[in-house]
Amino acid sequence: MGEFELIDWIRQRTPAAARVLVGPGDDTAVLAPSGARLLVTTDMLLEGSHFVLSEVAPERVGRKAMAVNLSDIAAMAGRPLAAVVALGLPRGRAGLAERLYTGLRTLADEFETPLIGGDTNSWNGPLCISVTLLGEAAINGAVLRRGALPGDWLMVTGPLGGSILGKQFDFTPRVHEAQRLHSLVRLHAMMDISDGLLADLQHICEESGCGALLHAERIPISVDAHRLGDGRSPLDHALSDGEDFELLFAVSPADGRSLLDTQPIAGLHIAHVGECIGERKLLIERDGQISQTEPKGFVHDL
Amino acid sequence: MGEFELIDWIRQRTPAAARVLVGPGDDTAVLAPSGARLLVTTDMLLEGSHFVLSEVAPERVGRKAMAVNLSDIAAMAGRPLAAVVALGLPRGRAGLAERLYTGLRTLADEFETPLIGGDTNSWNGPLCISVTLLGEAAINGAVLRRGALPGDWLMVTGPLGGSILGKQFDFTPRVHEAQRLHSLVRLHAMMDISDGLLADLQHICEESGCGALLHAERIPISVDAHRLGDGRSPLDHALSDGEDFELLFAVSPADGRSLLDTQPIAGLHIAHVGECIGERKLLIERDGQISQTEPKGFVHDL
Repeated sequence: MGEFELIDWIRQRTPAAARVLVGPGDDTAVLAPSGARLLVTTDMLLEGSHFVLSEVAPERVGRKAMAVNLSDIAAMAGRPLAAVVALGLPRGRAGLAERLYTGLRTLADEFETPLIGGDTNSWNGPLCISVTLLGEAAINGAVLRRGALPGDWLMVTGPLGGSILGKQFDFTPRVHEAQRLHSLVRLHAMMDISDGLLADLQHICEESGCGALLHAERIPISVDAHRLGDGRSPLDHALSDGEDFELLFAVSPADGRSLLDTQPIAGLHIAHVGECIGERKLLIERDGQISQTEPKGFVHDL
Repeated sequence: MGEFELIDWIRQRTPAAARVLVGPGDDTAVLAPSGARLLVTTDMLLEGSHFVLSEVAPERVGRKAMAVNLSDIAAMAGRPLAAVVALGLPRGRAGLAERLYTGLRTLADEFETPLIGGDTNSWNGPLCISVTLLGEAAINGAVLRRGALPGDWLMVTGPLGGSILGKQFDFTPRVHEAQRLHSLVRLHAMMDISDGLLADLQHICEESGCGALLHAERIPISVDAHRLGDGRSPLDHALSDGEDFELLFAVSPADGRSLLDTQPIAGLHIAHVGECIGERKLLIERDGQISQTEPKGFVHDL
């Protein structure tokens, strides 16, 4: 399939969407914005660095490329609007583009996110896939990383750690859950956990100008963190593994208590993992002892 | 420089812009849309395929990555709004990211296009750089590829061919010129010439459901097309070379005549290269003889 055949193939599979005035095939796509604040995020997945094609089907890679972007929209409590996809395809791997698009489209359809354009290239390098996702903020605004206040409760939407066993590819981005949370309580700050709980908590603290105290025994630890058995404790995995793609957020103690007691979102167990503090430190309490800690999550060297 | 240092470096260099409510550093950027139709385009440049780093400075590569996207916004007669950049950086080439950003920023600043976010990764592959550009349509709408009518004049904004000698990197996208044209005449269809005049004309014809007759002696041929001296005629280069990034557009004969006679845009010589015809063929007239032709421009095999 040549570039133009692929564009045709994609055009035939692009359903009409009210907001999409011009989809793939012109110089740009054209959207009719609703007037809401526009959210823009981009994430690139690289073969050999983010995935190994001999271990992961291209459909899962495509799905993940869409999922990580959707997770960023979730982190703002936004609604996805439309996506564009740029591909660098290794020469000579027939059918790869279609399989990637199939994976992308599965999740895009699930979240009603039309693929409105792209750029498809072949080269002698490994596979690279870059998705840019547009979204719209909720009527009550986007939820930023800044805004957490000393005394706020820190909460997470699910168990953490061990995503390397599969969740890193197969997670469902918390788009709907974030919207629901945003309608139920006043979210002071939020992000998705991609670099690890400690590292991402540090981002919230830096942006909000505060610190945090975590309670080790309250951190929900995934079954996969227990299964790894690699010498690191399950708690360590829960604190430091990346790619859980759960939400970490800060709310007032009253809102936090209400979420904890009522668990208002079906399928989700919200956990209270700590509090924001005025002192700009990351502290962790284990067995009644408080110690200072440092993020050990993903730090991407360039 | 690690990923977070680079984000800080970029944040420090991101000027405030009224439309940008949240720039780099949160889960997504947040824009305040103006209500105009939103344009979205993405283009990826790949080392070894689109450029060779031993021959081209990273600043020129970064500049081009922005320029090709700006050219797509120009092709819609739109106004650029903001861009995001995803990078796959080959490990161990210190300073490459900063040099790419410097090139990107030079042109982004020239066109008042804030860089509002990105994703920076290192890997064992060659350099890949993916830019997604948002724009806004003019008040009188976006100019599509469809809309050319039989009898329309076909016009181009500058000399063609031989871009490989330098213009492919150093062209200035015709953003301002396109806006000016759109305010002066009714543009029936337009695109930027990236795949070659014949190939891109074919796109306009396919989308508009028409054909075209080109007049060989009226096609403006660049000095570089003459300089190549590779056995192919300068005309052949002008017809088939890619990456001129001039505009090709269709207007009524009256509007075309007016543009041709008054040349209303400073620094631009608009040429009348042919007409749209009802028959769905690409014809070319040379020395009074008309023959059918086929695009020989870039066709990207996948």
